[in-house]
Amino acid sequence: MAGIVVQKIDRADAATIAGLAAAGVATVHEAQGRIGLLAPRIRPIYAGARIAGSAVTISAPPGDNWMIHVAIEQLQAGDILVLAPTSPCEDGYFGDLLATSAQVRGCRGLVIDAGVRDVRDLQAMGFPVWSRAVFAQGTIKATLGSVNVPIVCAGALVHPGDVIVADDDGVCVVSRATADAVLAAAQAREAAETGKRARLAAGELGLDIYGMREKLAALGLKYV
Amino acid sequence: MAGIVVQKIDRADAATIAGLAAAGVATVHEAQGRIGLLAPRIRPIYAGARIAGSAVTISAPPGDNWMIHVAIEQLQAGDILVLAPTSPCEDGYFGDLLATSAQVRGCRGLVIDAGVRDVRDLQAMGFPVWSRAVFAQGTIKATLGSVNVPIVCAGALVHPGDVIVADDDGVCVVSRATADAVLAAAQAREAAETGKRARLAAGELGLDIYGMREKLAALGLKYV
Amino acid sequence: MAGIVVQKIDRADAATIAGLAAAGVATVHEAQGRIGLLAPRIRPIYAGARIAGSAVTISAPPGDNWMIHVAIEQLQAGDILVLAPTSPCEDGYFGDLLATSAQVRGCRGLVIDAGVRDVRDLQAMGFPVWSRAVFAQGTIKATLGSVNVPIVCAGALVHPGDVIVADDDGVCVVSRATADAVLAAAQAREAAETGKRARLAAGELGLDIYGMREKLAALGLKYV
Amino acid sequence: MAGIVVQKIDRADAATIAGLAAAGVATVHEAQGRIGLLAPRIRPIYAGARIAGSAVTISAPPGDNWMIHVAIEQLQAGDILVLAPTSPCEDGYFGDLLATSAQVRGCRGLVIDAGVRDVRDLQAMGFPVWSRAVFAQGTIKATLGSVNVPIVCAGALVHPGDVIVADDDGVCVVSRATADAVLAAAQAREAAETGKRARLAAGELGLDIYGMREKLAALGLKYV
Amino acid sequence: MAGIVVQKIDRADAATIAGLAAAGVATVHEAQGRIGLLAPRIRPIYAGARIAGSAVTISAPPGDNWMIHVAIEQLQAGDILVLAPTSPCEDGYFGDLLATSAQVRGCRGLVIDAGVRDVRDLQAMGFPVWSRAVFAQGTIKATLGSVNVPIVCAGALVHPGDVIVADDDGVCVVSRATADAVLAAAQAREAAETGKRARLAAGELGLDIYGMREKLAALGLKYV
Amino acid sequence: MAGIVVQKIDRADAATIAGLAAAGVATVHEAQGRIGLLAPRIRPIYAGARIAGSAVTISAPPGDNWMIHVAIEQLQAGDILVLAPTSPCEDGYFGDLLATSAQVRGCRGLVIDAGVRDVRDLQAMGFPVWSRAVFAQGTIKATLGSVNVPIVCAGALVHPGDVIVADDDGVCVVSRATADAVLAAAQAREAAETGKRARLAAGELGLDIYGMREKLAALGLKYV
Repeated sequence: MAGIVVQKIDRADAATIAGLAAAGVATVHEAQGRIGLLAPRIRPIYAGARIAGSAVTISAPPGDNWMIHVAIEQLQAGDILVLAPTSPCEDGYFGDLLATSAQVRGCRGLVIDAGVRDVRDLQAMGFPVWSRAVFAQGTIKATLGSVNVPIVCAGALVHPGDVIVADDDGVCVVSRATADAVLAAAQAREAAETGKRARLAAGELGLDIYGMREKLAALGLKYV
Repeated sequence: MAGIVVQKIDRADAATIAGLAAAGVATVHEAQGRIGLLAPRIRPIYAGARIAGSAVTISAPPGDNWMIHVAIEQLQAGDILVLAPTSPCEDGYFGDLLATSAQVRGCRGLVIDAGVRDVRDLQAMGFPVWSRAVFAQGTIKATLGSVNVPIVCAGALVHPGDVIVADDDGVCVVSRATADAVLAAAQAREAAETGKRARLAAGELGLDIYGMREKLAALGLKYV
Repeated sequence: MAGIVVQKIDRADAATIAGLAAAGVATVHEAQGRIGLLAPRIRPIYAGARIAGSAVTISAPPGDNWMIHVAIEQLQAGDILVLAPTSPCEDGYFGDLLATSAQVRGCRGLVIDAGVRDVRDLQAMGFPVWSRAVFAQGTIKATLGSVNVPIVCAGALVHPGDVIVADDDGVCVVSRATADAVLAAAQAREAAETGKRARLAAGELGLDIYGMREKLAALGLKYV
Repeated sequence: MAGIVVQKIDRADAATIAGLAAAGVATVHEAQGRIGLLAPRIRPIYAGARIAGSAVTISAPPGDNWMIHVAIEQLQAGDILVLAPTSPCEDGYFGDLLATSAQVRGCRGLVIDAGVRDVRDLQAMGFPVWSRAVFAQGTIKATLGSVNVPIVCAGALVHPGDVIVADDDGVCVVSRATADAVLAAAQAREAAETGKRARLAAGELGLDIYGMREKLAALGLKYV
Repeated sequence: MAGIVVQKIDRADAATIAGLAAAGVATVHEAQGRIGLLAPRIRPIYAGARIAGSAVTISAPPGDNWMIHVAIEQLQAGDILVLAPTSPCEDGYFGDLLATSAQVRGCRGLVIDAGVRDVRDLQAMGFPVWSRAVFAQGTIKATLGSVNVPIVCAGALVHPGDVIVADDDGVCVVSRATADAVLAAAQAREAAETGKRARLAAGELGLDIYGMREKLAALGLKYV
Repeated sequence: MAGIVVQKIDRADAATIAGLAAAGVATVHEAQGRIGLLAPRIRPIYAGARIAGSAVTISAPPGDNWMIHVAIEQLQAGDILVLAPTSPCEDGYFGDLLATSAQVRGCRGLVIDAGVRDVRDLQAMGFPVWSRAVFAQGTIKATLGSVNVPIVCAGALVHPGDVIVADDDGVCVVSRATADAVLAAAQAREAAETGKRARLAAGELGLDIYGMREKLAALGLKYV
């Protein structure tokens, strides 16, 4: 089943993607019904990056980064590389040379359920990575994988062209078909939160704002 | 056994708490006989915070953050929220809205053996968290837990009103009853360390300062 | 077998060591044939440090840091302490006092397959540590270990006097006997990468630079 | 997106399923191109079970086993329950009562990326389970999930009606559409292995049977 | 705080303890309100043991098993040793000699949040152990701990004299004060389950027995 | 550095090896000064095997089992294969075909810091394996490794020809040069333990047999 490169994929609108980046991972996750998060083992290599983009997916053998070269040719400006190894692996698939090549094609970052290296250089370049490990272990180029096929990355199903949202809270995937609706829901949620935040900051309690006291009492909560 | 909110808890003196914060986790841990540390999986979400405060404890079901709202009403200025889930969980119980509400009541931070989200916002607000994971996964509000009951958090027994000390080294709990004595011991230790630090910085060896050479020789240490 | 301190060890040339530090972990690892990396659980306590030095090795019982005092006497300027516990342990073997003592003797840092504490102070002192954990748990001084014997640290065999290279990517060990050859290979690799980086930055693809297209086609890669 | 029960799913032929059970996990995995394995954290609660069946999938909230009751109604003889929690969880979703109910409807076993309990009873009943943990922790019935929707279970994408193969080596999923072809390939592989096994048992070397010596020499393998 | 041996502890009635053993871990855990479980990392070294007894607790330094000798003197027939190291440790604290000594005094088993060795001998002796690891690593006798003080073992608070229930599902602790009430609740639960098991075995669905259909519909569950 | 096969290695005497097997892992580990254990993640795939033999070592790339074929040719009766991957890996390097080939040459078992498959068949054949994981994931044959070079396997340094002792407690390595002395020490230890076991079984306490009471009292142990 490996050995396929899908060259044409559909992507979400740039404005939708920008809106999802601004909303951030936690809000987007909530807005789409609490789905789409990658496992918490996927962490940013440096703090502060906040991006969204279209997934160019890579299914790669363990310890073999050949398909990243193949995937880079498929990148368009605004894309994010998403790599899942076919068995668990922490080797360093990606470093500053690949980042240079990806960045010049407009790639916004990498999400990888494996390792990455040259992290100091990557930070200096402003090329963010969310990974399972930082590990210098080199990889080989011996076996085919696939590009732009559906993959399971850190427990989440990712189709090529899905919107990837990544920030300090982790990574969330939004299906292309629902991206506009999710953005709308995210923005509605943000608007609602703005008001709640102001009331909470003024000292009101969530117990009162959300009308929780009755339900808690009905369940038997006892104040002693 | 769940479903209890204890409204009145005793707290240590503010000056004692301030002293323990200044001493820091490693010194306080030593001063009280090497007890009280939470497991090392509990890490700060950002570097540099250094706090102490009175524990307001939360026993919460896995994936259910309802009791945090209940606990916030019990907060007094100088308190620290301490949450233990009733079974292992990495979901994101806490984010910027709850932090806003806690902070306005004078809460100094959160210690949680689970996940947290909105970490960028939390850092911007200066609301430190020590957690097991950063994970955006949303939680529900369906089941009662308890507030201000004794809990086991990351392997440490915490009673409400105990002093929590947290910094870049992790988290330590000091029982309220012994807080003054622990502070005295911590300050004595610091004083003793100041002198030792100066001697070490001048090039003296610990082998000589601590008189270790004889004991090592007696045990048979061989220099070859 | 424990209880030995080897006082005279051979070290690599200072210039070689400096060159390896400049090359960095990922390059050195590649240059010596993809060997020598410590496991990725060994992480720096703060970002940005980049050092190389001669290993002064410590084999220490779990939860017992006595041998660090013994090892410090053996330090020469430019050395790096490397500690492996004799069974898995995350206790905090090392803090600011030991760092003060090591630093005044010219020690450049510590690599430890266990825990460390006082990390805020260590960063303020500019004393870098690569460790398995940050944990304040105190240790005892009861049982002998050895200094400057071969150890296995985080999966890597380290002989005293081997060159340790450590940066944000982790830690790599280079045998003293091969250090000059590895440096030469690392510098050759860096030179080669400079040209490739420029071509990649100009938009050329790795597929073309490395002549991969034919091999991929031969293996059956299909573009659809 | 939660809250859906798909009542009608297509299943593979019983003979195909029986053939895949006989082939076993390792052979099936190879026969379909080395895909479909669940992560190795999924282990049998007792040794010796070897089954295949049609997946009835369950997406369940963490610590909430309500949907298992819903799923049991959808079971047909020969099915296997496959449950993935929506966030990581080790709670004990399943015990002897649910097993009794599932078994009477012809269910052959359970695959669950969470915990299970009553394992002694389950073994006595001959109801095999492959799980991430054995943990008695009880679960609640508060929140909807879904039944017979696609899920990601321990890193593998599972569609309802896919064939699940499970034995002491773990768990493998085979898509319904390819089940016949995979069975044919598995049986061909087994036939080929029978001959090889006999030759190996007679003392021939894989180096000779597979003609590896030339390739190894060409790559530079040196015998010293 | 270490260095204490409490010689006189209260124990629950033998009949109560026997009843809790018969009920088993999962039922006891439910009967006391879903509390008291040790973390799932604590596993039996062999399948099939099912015991309950009074806890004789041990707080021991990491890698130091001296206090087990002290604790054995405190054992009465029907007791269970429960050991928690003061920092995380997998060393082999316990083997066949200590088991011989404990068994002759009537000890029913060991629960330990660390390692154990001689597991083949322990099984042959019929001395069950629930541990975090099997590891032959030897321990020392250098530092005091305490016996029969409250400890936190694998996340659960255990007081001396508490009832420990252990079987293939793991370990649960029941406070002495509530042991009779928990047993009554456990037996009531078992009685209720007997009827349910018969109805489920006859093909009735939990959806009907527990009257779940209305609640599920009210929450919006959709059958498609 | 990879790509070497050392054809002639020295082995310990058969009688010594047999003696070490009889002594078992825990005793051998103690007899040689508490060194040589592999990490506790290495577990037997079935209970009850108890072997010793001469190490034929394999350094293999992650996910590549080619070198096992090469190693099998180097086997002599009484050998044990010991494989360490060059980066962390849980793939299934070894199954029933390779076991057939190894067994016919007199190989007694496999120790591997990676995965294994066909475990049911391996048990039926009586071919024991100690591994990090059971995982069916297939491996490739693309890259050279080495045979009979020193390796670090699960934290232990293993030279070809070292004696490997493996049983239900795990795996221990004994250097060939010290094997006779270690056996003598192990047998002396066993003899000493026989007497102690009898005294303990008769009800004497370790506190008295080992004369511990004075030392404990001197350190301040308090009976209350």
